[in-house]
Amino acid sequence: MVVNAHNELHHSSDTDDDHAAGDSFVVGVDYGTLSGRALVVRVSDGAELGTAVHEYEHGVIDHVLPGGGALPPDWALQYPDDYREVLRRAVPAAVADAGIDPARVVGIGVDFTACTVLPTLADGTPLCELDELRDRPHAYVKLWKHHAAQPHADRINALAHKRPEPWIARYGGKISSEWEYAKGLQLLEEDPQIYARTERWIEAADWITWQLCGAETRNACTAGYKGILQDGARPTAAFLSALAPDFADFNDKLDLAPGSPGISPLGSRAGGLTAQAAAWTGLREGIAVCVGNVDAHVTAPAAQAIEPGQMVAIMGTSTCHVMNGGQLAEVPGMCGVVDGGIIEGLWGYEAGQSGVGDIFAWFAEQSTPGQVRDEAERRGISVHELLTEQAAAQPVGAHGLIALDWHSGNRSVLVDHHLSGVIAGLTLGTKPHEVYRALLEATAFGTRVIIDAFEESGVPVNEFVVAGGLLRNSFLMQLYADVTRRPLSIIGSSQGPALGSAIHAAVAAGAYPDVPTAARAMGKIQRAAYTPDPKRASAYDALYAEYLRLHDYFGRGANEVLHRLRAIRLAAHDENGD
Amino acid sequence: MVVNAHNELHHSSDTDDDHAAGDSFVVGVDYGTLSGRALVVRVSDGAELGTAVHEYEHGVIDHVLPGGGALPPDWALQYPDDYREVLRRAVPAAVADAGIDPARVVGIGVDFTACTVLPTLADGTPLCELDELRDRPHAYVKLWKHHAAQPHADRINALAHKRPEPWIARYGGKISSEWEYAKGLQLLEEDPQIYARTERWIEAADWITWQLCGAETRNACTAGYKGILQDGARPTAAFLSALAPDFADFNDKLDLAPGSPGISPLGSRAGGLTAQAAAWTGLREGIAVCVGNVDAHVTAPAAQAIEPGQMVAIMGTSTCHVMNGGQLAEVPGMCGVVDGGIIEGLWGYEAGQSGVGDIFAWFAEQSTPGQVRDEAERRGISVHELLTEQAAAQPVGAHGLIALDWHSGNRSVLVDHHLSGVIAGLTLGTKPHEVYRALLEATAFGTRVIIDAFEESGVPVNEFVVAGGLLRNSFLMQLYADVTRRPLSIIGSSQGPALGSAIHAAVAAGAYPDVPTAARAMGKIQRAAYTPDPKRASAYDALYAEYLRLHDYFGRGANEVLHRLRAIRLAAHDENGD
Repeated sequence: MVVNAHNELHHSSDTDDDHAAGDSFVVGVDYGTLSGRALVVRVSDGAELGTAVHEYEHGVIDHVLPGGGALPPDWALQYPDDYREVLRRAVPAAVADAGIDPARVVGIGVDFTACTVLPTLADGTPLCELDELRDRPHAYVKLWKHHAAQPHADRINALAHKRPEPWIARYGGKISSEWEYAKGLQLLEEDPQIYARTERWIEAADWITWQLCGAETRNACTAGYKGILQDGARPTAAFLSALAPDFADFNDKLDLAPGSPGISPLGSRAGGLTAQAAAWTGLREGIAVCVGNVDAHVTAPAAQAIEPGQMVAIMGTSTCHVMNGGQLAEVPGMCGVVDGGIIEGLWGYEAGQSGVGDIFAWFAEQSTPGQVRDEAERRGISVHELLTEQAAAQPVGAHGLIALDWHSGNRSVLVDHHLSGVIAGLTLGTKPHEVYRALLEATAFGTRVIIDAFEESGVPVNEFVVAGGLLRNSFLMQLYADVTRRPLSIIGSSQGPALGSAIHAAVAAGAYPDVPTAARAMGKIQRAAYTPDPKRASAYDALYAEYLRLHDYFGRGANEVLHRLRAIRLAAHDENGD
Repeated sequence: MVVNAHNELHHSSDTDDDHAAGDSFVVGVDYGTLSGRALVVRVSDGAELGTAVHEYEHGVIDHVLPGGGALPPDWALQYPDDYREVLRRAVPAAVADAGIDPARVVGIGVDFTACTVLPTLADGTPLCELDELRDRPHAYVKLWKHHAAQPHADRINALAHKRPEPWIARYGGKISSEWEYAKGLQLLEEDPQIYARTERWIEAADWITWQLCGAETRNACTAGYKGILQDGARPTAAFLSALAPDFADFNDKLDLAPGSPGISPLGSRAGGLTAQAAAWTGLREGIAVCVGNVDAHVTAPAAQAIEPGQMVAIMGTSTCHVMNGGQLAEVPGMCGVVDGGIIEGLWGYEAGQSGVGDIFAWFAEQSTPGQVRDEAERRGISVHELLTEQAAAQPVGAHGLIALDWHSGNRSVLVDHHLSGVIAGLTLGTKPHEVYRALLEATAFGTRVIIDAFEESGVPVNEFVVAGGLLRNSFLMQLYADVTRRPLSIIGSSQGPALGSAIHAAVAAGAYPDVPTAARAMGKIQRAAYTPDPKRASAYDALYAEYLRLHDYFGRGANEVLHRLRAIRLAAHDENGD
């Protein structure tokens, strides 16, 4: 019994939040799609001491501008002052929640959704904050999921392959309509006046950092993944003018002036907290402000998963996969590979699945019959919990279904936002939890496609680590272990991105010499939390083979029905005046 | 205003149910899947005067026998005394409802689901009514939707093509697992004792007629469509013994003794009502009992649609298409072509869709979210009505979806009960009424495939006539007119099969010389009740092209995924002990 007692004592010590008088702290701020979260973290060991969330007043602007005026389909905007408000509200609230002296906070860092990008004046003023431009949709922040620049992305990709451009292979052969150049070309062609007024075209991650420290920076992560910066260069003016003559100057809106520090490595100091930002946050003027980062990429050090071959899947509404590699490889259908894109000195690979938790939520909301909702309410559990419980009671394959998880398009490996979801095998006996499980499985199969693509391109995946909100569904986690035939490690924090931002802030503040060292002290991982069951894994192999066949049939041109259906849908809405 | 007044007077006369003292009446009894309906009809003009429904006490026996004992998957049995009970309950109730003197009823006729077939002794006693056989599943009636004889049908089809047998082309190249020979072979191989005790293997239509008149008959419709009787012959003993040596005598259980009348033309007199049946029904002993018929086929004269090229679609849980043709043609994937199968002297064609209303009901029950159900309840309408109303508000193609209507397999033109449903084009914005509409459309596309197959085989379809319960959905009717690009006529009765049986009874009673003459007097049709809209029709053409591509991909062997998913599903349940 001595061992148990010792364990208990040790465990109790792990969760002890008391801190010594000499402790210092950092604040990580994670900007999501609907809200921003601040997290106060102890520098010495990464203990998470207090947190607060602030929801954006304007949320996602996808129907009507704040100043009135309807938006076309596929648009998704945001309002930049909502981001400042997170600094004013969530940061002081988190510090209060932690019960620490704000004077002991030595640094702050942010991460953001990406590519979320906005046009500003040379001093950083967002164009949508100019009175005369309030009613112009193109003056606003374009959120990552603004998908109206697909025709522009298509043209960029076609031209890049035609010339060909060296950088296109670094993005799996296709850049996304979500990124800076596609959204920029849309801006130019749909509202040339706003384009002309755009002095800076800047990621929200860099913009909010600018608001904190008063200095414009461009972080290596967004510049590489979203800004097509490779080997120190962007697409050439010749390339840009071949797209549209007036687009030739686009790089000038991205690059810092000659003589300025250029691209900032992750974890570096962007500047000191301004007096204004100190007033907003209640923190001390002059403390370190770290350069911006992306929510997914910043999570890798929070999970202590930054060695080459450690793939981190951040699973939420969508899934982002990030992984370091020692060498450069060009993996078909990846989102990108960027030198120092996750950790300085390593090649950072990124892949993604555009719909994951989003698809489960859609099903729960739109396809779960009243009797299931009623039962969940009666039992005091969520619809997701009930469907998962029912699904888990069945053996693999008992539903007889295969789904394609493309309800929100496919980011990797097909890089096609115009695909859509498919389900096959429905019978009059098919039950809601069976379809739900088929959707869970489809996302696991999608992950396996990505892992396999990396390995087939000579980039080994040695460990699969999960972070993000979907961690709480243990059936889903086991399913991923079974489908990928890999032990599954999990992050030891429910606030991975904010913890990652805090780790970077600690480095920017000089508390650690580099991010890997800080990650070893402050990051948290639970290794092999789920291990694959060989029997289930074999049964899933048969379903995965079916998934792959349908994936290639619907996704690789054998039948372009999903594209045609989308075109028919949009034309019908157009005609109807929707 | 004189014209209007005249019209009103005429209209009022049309609906006048008063009858003269000399009127005579007939009773049609329609045996469905869950209940039997009796309808009292005036001989002179087909006026429907009274009706009553009796639900089968045992319903569909698909889990546990009345005597206990679990059934395997895909089984569907019934209990024969439930059919007699319809005669005891519904017939007197319908006569009472009509308010007529039962002595004025001159004939009775029945129609039945088919192939619904049972084993009996030589005197017609069902084997399941023998005490010692009560616990033997194979002693019961096998309902049409008993689908456990698919392996037996597969072997019959394979052997028929290998030898080859001349009759196989008359059934579109494939006989169904639902029919007499497949179910008979299953009986032989799974319970040879019951097979040996089976002195008669008889359609329920003929069996209940036997109960009415005391004489065994075999009607031309079920003998041809379900009993593989072509050009006066059945499959040879050589063929049968090649399937299984002990199956060689199977025809003896079907054919009447030499010297008996053989196959009975539709509308002929099976015999006189027995004293016992007169006691059950309250009708006069000795009145004409018509030979049996099938619910779908008997509806054609009720809709006055018996000319060559008039296709009648009886749309309910499933859809059956029946049509007369002047010549014999072999249409791929049809259920069958039978000389005199609908009307004596013409070739009767049958095709079908195995899931129609069933699919809509499944969706309403299993995929309609609570908020839709709540709104329907609040407005006092059905979920179907609400979904239809919402779906109807959208232009063609606005949902961006294509579904395959195979949730219950595909009867025509693929003749494959092991297919399953597919839906493609789902997005996070897809709403329940959009999926519902895609399912409605899928069934219309399935109908168009059938019409096109007839026309491509040289069997013109000149008029499309709808009967059955789905008539009440006028959006669905318009959709069928648009998709098929044809005016759509509708039957003028909500009790088509029972009216058809009554028409045949009138012929059997000698009130008319033949069924066409009786149909002209007693049948009811509203011509061109819906006409196609050219703009919508063109829009549907684009969706139909997508349907066809997926139909052939999933249904014709390019990807056997639906068959493999089914095999995986059954194996998983087996292993689980389900």
